[in-house]
Amino acid sequence: MIVRRYKEMLEEKSVIRTLSEIAAKRAEKIGKENVFDYSLGNPSVPAPAAFTEAVSSLLSEKDATQLHGYSPTLGIPSVKARIAASLNQRFGMHYGPEHIFPASAAAAAIAHALRAVVEPGDEVLTIAPFFPEYRPYVELAGGVLKVVPPDTGAFQIDFETFASMLGPKVAAVLINTPNNPSGAVYSAETLRRLARIMTEKSEEYGHDIFLISDEPYREIVFDGKEQPYVSSFYANTIACYSFSKSLSLPGERIGYLAVNPACPDAALIVNMCGQISRGIGHNCPSSLMQLAVARVLDRTADFTVYERNRNLLYDCLKEIGFEVVKPQGTFYIFPKALEEDAVAFCQKALEYDLVLVPADSFGCPGYFRMAYCIETEKVERSLPVLRRFAREVYGK
Amino acid sequence: MIVRRYKEMLEEKSVIRTLSEIAAKRAEKIGKENVFDYSLGNPSVPAPAAFTEAVSSLLSEKDATQLHGYSPTLGIPSVKARIAASLNQRFGMHYGPEHIFPASAAAAAIAHALRAVVEPGDEVLTIAPFFPEYRPYVELAGGVLKVVPPDTGAFQIDFETFASMLGPKVAAVLINTPNNPSGAVYSAETLRRLARIMTEKSEEYGHDIFLISDEPYREIVFDGKEQPYVSSFYANTIACYSFSKSLSLPGERIGYLAVNPACPDAALIVNMCGQISRGIGHNCPSSLMQLAVARVLDRTADFTVYERNRNLLYDCLKEIGFEVVKPQGTFYIFPKALEEDAVAFCQKALEYDLVLVPADSFGCPGYFRMAYCIETEKVERSLPVLRRFAREVYGK
Repeated sequence: MIVRRYKEMLEEKSVIRTLSEIAAKRAEKIGKENVFDYSLGNPSVPAPAAFTEAVSSLLSEKDATQLHGYSPTLGIPSVKARIAASLNQRFGMHYGPEHIFPASAAAAAIAHALRAVVEPGDEVLTIAPFFPEYRPYVELAGGVLKVVPPDTGAFQIDFETFASMLGPKVAAVLINTPNNPSGAVYSAETLRRLARIMTEKSEEYGHDIFLISDEPYREIVFDGKEQPYVSSFYANTIACYSFSKSLSLPGERIGYLAVNPACPDAALIVNMCGQISRGIGHNCPSSLMQLAVARVLDRTADFTVYERNRNLLYDCLKEIGFEVVKPQGTFYIFPKALEEDAVAFCQKALEYDLVLVPADSFGCPGYFRMAYCIETEKVERSLPVLRRFAREVYGK
Repeated sequence: MIVRRYKEMLEEKSVIRTLSEIAAKRAEKIGKENVFDYSLGNPSVPAPAAFTEAVSSLLSEKDATQLHGYSPTLGIPSVKARIAASLNQRFGMHYGPEHIFPASAAAAAIAHALRAVVEPGDEVLTIAPFFPEYRPYVELAGGVLKVVPPDTGAFQIDFETFASMLGPKVAAVLINTPNNPSGAVYSAETLRRLARIMTEKSEEYGHDIFLISDEPYREIVFDGKEQPYVSSFYANTIACYSFSKSLSLPGERIGYLAVNPACPDAALIVNMCGQISRGIGHNCPSSLMQLAVARVLDRTADFTVYERNRNLLYDCLKEIGFEVVKPQGTFYIFPKALEEDAVAFCQKALEYDLVLVPADSFGCPGYFRMAYCIETEKVERSLPVLRRFAREVYGK
């Protein structure tokens, strides 16, 4: 009596994981430094020293039974208060601790948000290109994922199609800006238009439509710009945040869900998250991690390396003749492949020890993703290889 | 569109939580030292110094991007290998790393185990008295919880009733030894008989019946005795372990699931857990915590205080005239109330600032639980109050 659903999931293996396994095997053979692995979004810049110092001080200052004691179901109150204060100061919001739910990074925040507002059979709209893990998050919450085709011109939103797909069965819209994989940053204009359409449709159908905003890359924006704060555009917004990228702590599974105080059900949703956690045995993130990140909320790792890598890759890809939109944030770039079948394209690139990810599972066939959260020196060494690959295989 | 199920759960508040809130309010009024709060199972002895040292060394020795990097979906291989080796050495088992799944404490391990072997509508049997959180774990995994009434003589298992309830719809049996709330330790004889019945019924029905063994108190056994290792009695056993009590780290959410290598589907179940995690956005426990506990696997906090408290309380309760079985482990004692309605009994005790938990939600009405993971000095001060309460209200 093994549950079929999860057994079957094992058979649909993640492309990214498969590719990174191939890369790891190849690295064993020819040396890690000779494989140009652009497959994984694992930060390459270290956590800021202030974070390590925060952990060390907590260990020496606090009584161990208190420090490692149970977190309340809804999170440690002082941590929630600090997160609210930081968001209010940075984005002019009005969060209280009752609007914040510490979660095991954005993945858990999204999974909780979906369980709070999506009844079985409800639709969830997302915009291509999108992070492929949205599919299991939505489906295992009982929802049905519907994908709005990409606006490949600027990787903002094709609003005509979006509006036509926003039917009465849609309970939530799930967006991600700065965007994995395109590197696009939704503009204030995009967010205003999104909010306007969602407000109109909510009124037309007579029920709330929630905006679930996946924001792990919120601070990684280039050229001195900033990501307009999504929740400030639409009342029924649930922001799902992670410190995985901002503090380079992906393995510590720490983030939070923040429900816009303008949402009439805000405090209720946070309370419900506590019940959702009970059922999945999830409970709160590590007490030590909650307390540690609360001490360095407004710090980030040093992102200059990502911007440098973005510039190097973008210039090279353009020069080769790739069709590519300049990323405004994240650590991804998302060019069009040099043949229609991006899977075949990435297969061929593998022979040059270039590990690229075809974007079929991101809802954008014909494109591929490069995660450039690697050392700049390696990016530099990969450029002549990219050029040789394009020339030898595609005559570019 | 707020999901009804979780909203409704909010209305059924946990008795334990309500009581501990009352205790906290009362403490504000008369001082924490004057409230005898026996409601919460929050360890009072600190984590061993070796654990804090392990965290500190990891922070100083390891490169931050590695230390805080993503854990593989199935856990950090070196951590899994160490856990397997420790279990093999201590219990004569034959685990490999492929049988171990690091989980966010026993709650998450149980939630994963249930999702791996319980199809919607399947029955899960547990034995009263049982930890009330089993109900949301089972129900939100889609199962139906059936409770075998308690053997109040020794808090082992009433096998006649157990066998009659083990019908063809039962997918799993969920046990907890040493037991919360009774403090009973299932004997080798109990475990052998349990295994025999489960084996017979599996054969009769032609399908596997899994044993899910909740083991957070495995090391807290008194009088120099040991808990016989449950998995060694039955092939299809999934052990759910937590370091919350053994290392006094309840807030760090760290434990594991270990599938008996004798179970034909062992490695498959661990792989499925990775898929279950994807769907609930749970992923792995903190990388730092995985690495830290792996360095102190065979250590424990100092449990002598629990044994001392057990002795003090047991002797006093017996002397007063309570009907009570001597706990062999955990940090709970489970006497029969002095009137039929344990809720009324505990209400009356509150007036003496004694916070006791009625066992209705543990499946054992008429009994109450005392969690004696508090300072011995406080236990000592509570004894005359207990005596006065029993004398004044019940003439004992």
